[in-house]
Amino acid sequence: MHPIVERIAQKDIRALAKAITMVENDVPDKLDLLSDVFQLKGHARLVGLTGSPGAGKSSLVNRLITRLRQQNKTVAVIAVDPTSPFSGGALLGDRVRMHQHFTDEGVFIRSMATRGSLGGLARATKDALRLCDAFGFDVVIVETVGVGQSELDIMKIVDTTAVVVTPNSGDVLQIFKAGIMEIADLFVINKADLPGFGKLKALLKELVMTTATTEHETAIIKTVATENKGIDQLITAIEAHHTFLYNTHTGQKRRLDQLSLEVHELIREEIWRDVGAFLDTERVESYFKQETVDPYKLAQALYEKWKHNGGSDI
Amino acid sequence: MHPIVERIAQKDIRALAKAITMVENDVPDKLDLLSDVFQLKGHARLVGLTGSPGAGKSSLVNRLITRLRQQNKTVAVIAVDPTSPFSGGALLGDRVRMHQHFTDEGVFIRSMATRGSLGGLARATKDALRLCDAFGFDVVIVETVGVGQSELDIMKIVDTTAVVVTPNSGDVLQIFKAGIMEIADLFVINKADLPGFGKLKALLKELVMTTATTEHETAIIKTVATENKGIDQLITAIEAHHTFLYNTHTGQKRRLDQLSLEVHELIREEIWRDVGAFLDTERVESYFKQETVDPYKLAQALYEKWKHNGGSDI
Repeated sequence: MHPIVERIAQKDIRALAKAITMVENDVPDKLDLLSDVFQLKGHARLVGLTGSPGAGKSSLVNRLITRLRQQNKTVAVIAVDPTSPFSGGALLGDRVRMHQHFTDEGVFIRSMATRGSLGGLARATKDALRLCDAFGFDVVIVETVGVGQSELDIMKIVDTTAVVVTPNSGDVLQIFKAGIMEIADLFVINKADLPGFGKLKALLKELVMTTATTEHETAIIKTVATENKGIDQLITAIEAHHTFLYNTHTGQKRRLDQLSLEVHELIREEIWRDVGAFLDTERVESYFKQETVDPYKLAQALYEKWKHNGGSDI
Repeated sequence: MHPIVERIAQKDIRALAKAITMVENDVPDKLDLLSDVFQLKGHARLVGLTGSPGAGKSSLVNRLITRLRQQNKTVAVIAVDPTSPFSGGALLGDRVRMHQHFTDEGVFIRSMATRGSLGGLARATKDALRLCDAFGFDVVIVETVGVGQSELDIMKIVDTTAVVVTPNSGDVLQIFKAGIMEIADLFVINKADLPGFGKLKALLKELVMTTATTEHETAIIKTVATENKGIDQLITAIEAHHTFLYNTHTGQKRRLDQLSLEVHELIREEIWRDVGAFLDTERVESYFKQETVDPYKLAQALYEKWKHNGGSDI
């Protein structure tokens, strides 16, 4: 067993933090590490929380932590920082609100920063969720601002994705457009004391009915995070969705699809690492000495070369 | 030659629009199409414009079009829609401002929408730039809101990337953090009539000096797009940067690096298409019938299988 995984098995929280840094840095023995971690078999509810900036996600997370701690449950939170280089610091204020939990040993909070590609961030976030699960947390929450496909991809690894919307924000129109319906396991109408709540709820209800089955109907939860309202109902809805996942045919199929998708991604990453090493030795730049080389033809030729040589013995 | 490329060679603007749709939809013969297009050898200045929402990018593009048309130059604009599913429609208003050019045959405006992955959008946008270049436009501008790594990646294909900032917006702090310096070929301080201009310019100047060489120093251009001020200086700076690219060793190296990077990307895409087909026939889900399968180990095993069978004969 990987030494860091042994320490995680012994509930060493610093080993968890270090392992997350290792997957972020894409260390060479990452797959072995994660494979070992997979054997630890966590039992966490993996919960995703997404929604536009200002929807009150961090306040909701904060209230969820407090309530879950009262129920003696341990909680890990993975906060995915916004990907914009221009608004990168905007959410720091939100983070500060969670600081009250920083001295609680039953709570682990970690920000994932954008480094390198967005795809890399999504991958590292998923690995971090697995690590927190393996460590033994009862609930692992990943919070993202819904600013891109990669962030939505992260939600494909969680058990339950809660999409947070607010009255009169126009979010619902975007939900129609961007395929958010596909990833929403439950809707949270936060700031439900604002005017426009009834209209928003009616609209969501209609949306939800179009995808409802006898086994499952997407729940709509009403919260006012700042007043600590609706948090218990949200926790109950998350549990109900978990029961659906583990006790119905549809739920099981969804979990299998998620695992398959992950295998696809892992293979993609592995191949790209190998091909990258092959291309480094090929020194692609050298082909361009005569300016007339066509990058499309060159790509095809190099790929053929890799398949017939590098592909089978690298 | 691909039939659509023949029509592009004959300056059929509808063929250009159709070809962009084809690369967006990732048609099977895309690489052949692009390879043929590459033979047409355009002469366009490829210009990227990026910056935070509200920096006035669309106004700048609008003014640039007008001025370039006065100089009898033809212009294509590729506008990359923001990737947020929540704020997807926000820029539509900006687009409308460009409508005055819609009846001008020397101007081509196209929006690229997010479909599928962000990586797919970046790829399609680069292909669209190539197509516009091949069609024969004198200037091709790609406009993005700098909301993610993929959008910044788009800038790696252009000749000149202009980063638009405004006084007192805090953008400059983010430029430090997010590695924007690496992609900025010139800075545009728009809304330069706002208070805080002097401070921003001094700060940018300091930033620029840290990367300046005897061959090249990143220009800082002062504009007030709404009053049509500084547009000529911006065009001159774009030309000066083009001269640097084509007449210095550093410039040439950068162009070779760009082409190499593109080859890497094309190979990655090609491989993923092949592996995807292999995995479809493998029916990955079937491996998970016993819940104990480790996705990390399975990924490694399937990759080995592909390398030794599929990799060489698919």
